[in-house]
Amino acid sequence: MTQALYNFGPGPAMLPASVLEQVQREMLDYQGTGVSIVELSHRGPVFFQLLDDARALFRELTGLPDSHTILFMHGGAQMQFSAVPLNLMASKPAHRAQYAITGKWGRLAEAEARKYGNTSVLLDGKDSDYTRVPEWDSTQVDPEASYVHITTNNTLYGTQWSEIPDTGNVPLAADATSDILSRQFDYSRFGVLFAGLQKNLGPAGAAVVLVRNDLFEHALPETPKLLDYTIFRNNRTMPNTINTFAVYVMKLVLEWVKAEGGVEQMEARNSRKSARLYGVLDDSGFYLPSAHPESRSQMNVIFHLPSDELLQRFLSAADAAGFYAVKGHAEVGGIRASIYNAMPYEGVEALAQFMLEFERRNG
Amino acid sequence: MTQALYNFGPGPAMLPASVLEQVQREMLDYQGTGVSIVELSHRGPVFFQLLDDARALFRELTGLPDSHTILFMHGGAQMQFSAVPLNLMASKPAHRAQYAITGKWGRLAEAEARKYGNTSVLLDGKDSDYTRVPEWDSTQVDPEASYVHITTNNTLYGTQWSEIPDTGNVPLAADATSDILSRQFDYSRFGVLFAGLQKNLGPAGAAVVLVRNDLFEHALPETPKLLDYTIFRNNRTMPNTINTFAVYVMKLVLEWVKAEGGVEQMEARNSRKSARLYGVLDDSGFYLPSAHPESRSQMNVIFHLPSDELLQRFLSAADAAGFYAVKGHAEVGGIRASIYNAMPYEGVEALAQFMLEFERRNG
Repeated sequence: MTQALYNFGPGPAMLPASVLEQVQREMLDYQGTGVSIVELSHRGPVFFQLLDDARALFRELTGLPDSHTILFMHGGAQMQFSAVPLNLMASKPAHRAQYAITGKWGRLAEAEARKYGNTSVLLDGKDSDYTRVPEWDSTQVDPEASYVHITTNNTLYGTQWSEIPDTGNVPLAADATSDILSRQFDYSRFGVLFAGLQKNLGPAGAAVVLVRNDLFEHALPETPKLLDYTIFRNNRTMPNTINTFAVYVMKLVLEWVKAEGGVEQMEARNSRKSARLYGVLDDSGFYLPSAHPESRSQMNVIFHLPSDELLQRFLSAADAAGFYAVKGHAEVGGIRASIYNAMPYEGVEALAQFMLEFERRNG
Repeated sequence: MTQALYNFGPGPAMLPASVLEQVQREMLDYQGTGVSIVELSHRGPVFFQLLDDARALFRELTGLPDSHTILFMHGGAQMQFSAVPLNLMASKPAHRAQYAITGKWGRLAEAEARKYGNTSVLLDGKDSDYTRVPEWDSTQVDPEASYVHITTNNTLYGTQWSEIPDTGNVPLAADATSDILSRQFDYSRFGVLFAGLQKNLGPAGAAVVLVRNDLFEHALPETPKLLDYTIFRNNRTMPNTINTFAVYVMKLVLEWVKAEGGVEQMEARNSRKSARLYGVLDDSGFYLPSAHPESRSQMNVIFHLPSDELLQRFLSAADAAGFYAVKGHAEVGGIRASIYNAMPYEGVEALAQFMLEFERRNG
């Protein structure tokens, strides 16, 4: 493997260079304490301050009102595939939930929820091989459902909900792992919104979870303690030892987002970055873009090559040029360029030039 | 707070200086890949190698045979308080489990297990305020129990099982969070052994779990996917994105243990370290050691002062001298010196000298 120049990995993904430099700088001594962030007590004033700062920054960047509580939990988004039904299914007597399936993660979330209640599929993009987010029909929402689950961005298929659907009075539960803080949402519209950190927020192994305050205290009796939202809320989000390193890096990433102009600026950059790559694809008679134009993701740009031989040649050439982890997911194939917040425009431009040159030589 | 000289925190705890220096050195570029360990793909050959190396080192250091599988899971030891009953309770038809309660963690583990089966308390140290590990009586083991649960070392009370109890044919499930790799065990004797990383192994937020191979495939139907041992085994311990940073640091810690002479050498050092502090306590007419001599922990040395005023004075003076996090747990009070593997003898000697001087001035 060539040394990477730009990291297009889908997650764990690249982080801002300035964040990693700060992590490196203070690895042996966190803010003059004399101990490393990984050695620091999670019950002392220094870490409490870090946690409060991270939450305050998150609220500032997202405009999240006090109607919602911010939790940091273990295990990434897939742990929330269990936690959402465990905590929300019993919030209404029917114990029913609806899933909008726009890719693999929605499918897995629905399968997990079946353990804890009655699920139904509100929409499923399988007819288009998940290359399109199906049209939303709010008349399909079951008013007795405890929640409706969506995946805001689909990393495998390179699709994204262009607008957050209206579920009326039924709480919307959203897996926003791969586009959180990449575009402006009205975060108060979600009943629960969760995101594994490892794409737009920090290292792998933890998740941020936003819970609307009326949705606490409905956990099923079989809920494991560390999947119970109410127990996290009641214990300052630390019923046990938190992943201190992940929260720390996330706080640095949030500071970086703020310093760079906030989510508005992230969205503008991400539009420009993705438009550059989709422009190359649309102008090409060679590359085959995967997602339907109206469902295109600004985070994961996926395309195919005319033959498997050309795909292999592209992968080798990309690796030699220092473009790291551009291989598509095994279930989808092709090429995937993940261009989360931390990817600079220069990285996208370098990939665009590489793609144009590759087409010239091989097209 | 004064800058720490020695970190006596109970966990997150100190790590070997050479490990943190290596983490710092390679933070921007993991082994020539050009990406940070926190940005590295968890599905690529470089991380697979790291994972394989960590497991091989763990086997080498512990002598763990192929009869057991090594898993890395999310959430620390408390997540295992749920996972153990979820995975093991149904391994026998009675769905019964027995708990040996030697402190707070055993009590919490038993409370959690009640959600998933019938628990009983095999022994409970509450009559001695958990300052003693009660005598083991193997005739109390229920042969129809799915497992017996113990806590090998009790961080709050400074007690430790001096010998691992014999549960006959009933699988022994052990929370070894605070003394794993600190002394020699026959690891093959355990049905399940788990440890949160943040004391003797690495950063907080993940756990290593050893599972005897006949104990897979008994998970209860309500088991969340990411608490199911069999799903971890079947997916190379990565059914979702693993806490890559924690596994990485753990591997460096394992390399350090090996370079320092292995678990045998750790045990010898820990005996010497704890003997130094217990010696100060036993020779003193001032300090009040907490644990009964036959149950003393080599990891957490706990003692009280004659008055609350002297306790406060000790805490202030210890902080000023650079002894970090020596305050006892809120439920126990007093002073707790946690002296895990990474604490050098010099740190213990410095604390011993400080204690002697404090006694001279205040005794």
